[in-house]
Amino acid sequence: MKTRHLIDLDDLSLDEINQILDLAKVIMAHPPYYLDSCHGKLMATLFYEPSTRTQMSFQSAMLKLGGQVIGFDNPGNSSVSKGESLKDTVRVVSNYADVVVIRHPKEGTAKAAGMFSRAPVINAGDGGHLHPTQTLTDLFTLLNTKGRLDHLAVGFCGDLKNGRTVHSLIKTLIRYPGSRFILISTPELALPDYLKDLVRAAGCDYTECASLYDAIGDVDVLYMTRIQQERFASREEYEKQKGAFVLDTETLKRARYGLKILHPLPRVDEIDYAVDDDPRAVYFEQTEYGMFARMALILHMLDGSKKQLDARPESNTPHRCANPRCITSTESYLPRLFKKTDGGLFCEYCDAAQPAGGGEEGR
Amino acid sequence: MKTRHLIDLDDLSLDEINQILDLAKVIMAHPPYYLDSCHGKLMATLFYEPSTRTQMSFQSAMLKLGGQVIGFDNPGNSSVSKGESLKDTVRVVSNYADVVVIRHPKEGTAKAAGMFSRAPVINAGDGGHLHPTQTLTDLFTLLNTKGRLDHLAVGFCGDLKNGRTVHSLIKTLIRYPGSRFILISTPELALPDYLKDLVRAAGCDYTECASLYDAIGDVDVLYMTRIQQERFASREEYEKQKGAFVLDTETLKRARYGLKILHPLPRVDEIDYAVDDDPRAVYFEQTEYGMFARMALILHMLDGSKKQLDARPESNTPHRCANPRCITSTESYLPRLFKKTDGGLFCEYCDAAQPAGGGEEGR
Amino acid sequence: MKTRHLIDLDDLSLDEINQILDLAKVIMAHPPYYLDSCHGKLMATLFYEPSTRTQMSFQSAMLKLGGQVIGFDNPGNSSVSKGESLKDTVRVVSNYADVVVIRHPKEGTAKAAGMFSRAPVINAGDGGHLHPTQTLTDLFTLLNTKGRLDHLAVGFCGDLKNGRTVHSLIKTLIRYPGSRFILISTPELALPDYLKDLVRAAGCDYTECASLYDAIGDVDVLYMTRIQQERFASREEYEKQKGAFVLDTETLKRARYGLKILHPLPRVDEIDYAVDDDPRAVYFEQTEYGMFARMALILHMLDGSKKQLDARPESNTPHRCANPRCITSTESYLPRLFKKTDGGLFCEYCDAAQPAGGGEEGR
Repeated sequence: MKTRHLIDLDDLSLDEINQILDLAKVIMAHPPYYLDSCHGKLMATLFYEPSTRTQMSFQSAMLKLGGQVIGFDNPGNSSVSKGESLKDTVRVVSNYADVVVIRHPKEGTAKAAGMFSRAPVINAGDGGHLHPTQTLTDLFTLLNTKGRLDHLAVGFCGDLKNGRTVHSLIKTLIRYPGSRFILISTPELALPDYLKDLVRAAGCDYTECASLYDAIGDVDVLYMTRIQQERFASREEYEKQKGAFVLDTETLKRARYGLKILHPLPRVDEIDYAVDDDPRAVYFEQTEYGMFARMALILHMLDGSKKQLDARPESNTPHRCANPRCITSTESYLPRLFKKTDGGLFCEYCDAAQPAGGGEEGR
Repeated sequence: MKTRHLIDLDDLSLDEINQILDLAKVIMAHPPYYLDSCHGKLMATLFYEPSTRTQMSFQSAMLKLGGQVIGFDNPGNSSVSKGESLKDTVRVVSNYADVVVIRHPKEGTAKAAGMFSRAPVINAGDGGHLHPTQTLTDLFTLLNTKGRLDHLAVGFCGDLKNGRTVHSLIKTLIRYPGSRFILISTPELALPDYLKDLVRAAGCDYTECASLYDAIGDVDVLYMTRIQQERFASREEYEKQKGAFVLDTETLKRARYGLKILHPLPRVDEIDYAVDDDPRAVYFEQTEYGMFARMALILHMLDGSKKQLDARPESNTPHRCANPRCITSTESYLPRLFKKTDGGLFCEYCDAAQPAGGGEEGR
Repeated sequence: MKTRHLIDLDDLSLDEINQILDLAKVIMAHPPYYLDSCHGKLMATLFYEPSTRTQMSFQSAMLKLGGQVIGFDNPGNSSVSKGESLKDTVRVVSNYADVVVIRHPKEGTAKAAGMFSRAPVINAGDGGHLHPTQTLTDLFTLLNTKGRLDHLAVGFCGDLKNGRTVHSLIKTLIRYPGSRFILISTPELALPDYLKDLVRAAGCDYTECASLYDAIGDVDVLYMTRIQQERFASREEYEKQKGAFVLDTETLKRARYGLKILHPLPRVDEIDYAVDDDPRAVYFEQTEYGMFARMALILHMLDGSKKQLDARPESNTPHRCANPRCITSTESYLPRLFKKTDGGLFCEYCDAAQPAGGGEEGR
């Protein structure tokens, strides 16, 4: 059974993920065979916030498959986002396009878009929530540079509290056997507890460490991320701590021969430019792997897809999501959907936990 | 005889309009046959004001014909509009492109552009003046959803005074036999008298009505438009009256079974979201019909077209157009052209009536 | 031996320039033969400052060869330029693209980009420094309208001090035998001395003249350029002098029958609109020649090109370039490269002369 939209990588079975990665490998080996695979097909890139890198990666992927691209790249620049609901825009654009790639500052937007799109929707980032094609990129990079996705000791370095790419990659890697994580950050920027719980529940190990210098010798893979000044109590605090999370050639001397260094880019100064010339640095290759992964994803989603509207779920409650960054806070026509678990009530769009009692009142 | 540029739908004979609609129907039935019809052809979209919806519709149309697209979408974003005359931009871009689609805030711009373009020009909106491809879209939607363009009772609801799409559709429908109009608006936003005169002169009937609720039972087609707060004397006035021009499921209960509801989009709140799920709502389908109509138009205009400059008419007077929104107010090199009718003197660019005597003085 | 990047037209041998112009001629004669030459190839246009004209010319060229285009057109509009080094952007984009066209406000950027690009880089303007494809355009226009590139008496009119297109065309024309220049400008906007020295050293003649009216009768080619008000001491000074550098039909009466008038566009008011209809005005045709020249250039550069990173030169000094408009002033990781000549020390990125002693100190 194939997923119609790609909102969250967790929606895909491991089998389906592996199928996409396998296809990416074949495409990368024989690009000319795929030059016209999407001839006559149209991709729409609806970017409600600018993200030129992600957009260019998707565009390149579609164009290299022989397809074409329409879309917009900036709300300020576009008349679409003014005075038109997400629903209307998606409904109209999915009349033109065969696949819709959406990026939006509000959490849960891609899921909402899927309800009104006649074409498959790919989530290219919904606020700080999900960014599944970055994780696909990371997986395909690991597969190509390490040769496997299981039994890897992966170090994550930087802001592990807010890094959505980190969370998503961890959630996916624990589905493969033998994953082990070394979490390198300050206590303030540590991985959230619910993720540590997930890691443990999957039977995986993790250790925490406050210095990249100490940890780098123990990892097969180092996943670097930005560490933003705004996250620190003060500029002094930032200046004092950031050194422990910067990769330079000195620190790199302690690393294994077979280490691979990944980074979702853009980097700021957490990796010294001198590291770029080390063969263990694969963050630039990573972007090319990302393009091939997106080519495979597009083909996978177009394969057998029909232009249709899905049946829309009915609201299962009159309550409103309490998260102000949720797409339901601005698009009032969306059915209100919550899932109840042992842990409480969660919004189906943004996954935010609802305050006890708060949800009962409605608004 | 084929029209070289599409500035005003009135320039086309009924025969030529029907040819385009027939072609659109064939394309819609067999898209793959047309996948490469414009292979090697280039369309330029010169959008001097943002209109992402219209631009995406044209781009999709050209790309689905196998053609390619260049252009810009925003004056603030482009260096073209800075310090370069319309003439120079059009002259240069028509060296690259095989068809030029232009949108501009000044009235008469498309006509002016046609004088300096080597390629056919399509008007995608010149200020509040004309927007012929929206009318083509509306006609094609009627043809597909009602099965005919004649003997239709069409209700127009909203701001009928300023609605350029309404004016243009009425002017075209009176060319088909048996059209009847129900004009639903406030007295302040009523259809201009000159258009009522045209309707009568064509032997068509119209009635006026101040409430959608009262009128909806009598129409085969309901053409909804936005009703803008700025058009009312006060916010109170707006709040008091707007309810009479909003379509909701309650009002819809009084409508005929075979009613079709059109809207040029974007809608604001004049159609309730709950109406979207009614099969009589065809405003989303309308955008897809619009894409096919534009595909047919592009093919029609490229067919046999040659890259050439038309002979430019000489100024027939030293007078200047009195309309400050006319393109001639900013582009001084344009020949000054007026047509004299029994009704007075009219600018050939923006169609504005010239004040008696005023024109005699020149400036 | 083929040049891998096109940074400066001086990098090309006369032989290579002539090859490109010959190819442009063949393409112009038989566009359909080249319709699919770049099928499956991708061009990236990285425009760090808007230049819609140049970008549309490159896009049209690539699309008419059957290739595809990605890129951005405005730093304000793009997330790429924010918080990412030129190196990282170019390195990533050249993973996607087969050829990279770059425009940037800083001098020397294209050369810097070439160091980190896996694909050939074409300079589409780096600050006020170089713009080689405009010169290629000018040469191809001369070849087509005059039938030759040698033994031409070329008048340059306007701001000859700051006009980068003027400098570049003069530097290239002195490589052809029998070139003669008539320099028409105010003393304040005269051609820089170092260029006059180059002209003399090449055995070519030049004369200077303060009035277009006096000079126009003596030239085979008139190369007009903008004369910007900001360059004058005062508005009065500008108003007084500008008339001597405006081409109108009156002045044109004194010109030769076979004169050809070029202009890099956009023009402001240095050429009267009435001149456009004179067959000697070829500045609009020039843009079409430019498109064919760029098609030939793209094909020439893609021919046999491999995706690779060039070996990067080591810094040959710890000094920094003294020119604040040089790309090295903002991108600190660039190797510091200077060339020593009899005339002193010059930056290899921006070609700026370094102050004596100043360079010795470093910073």
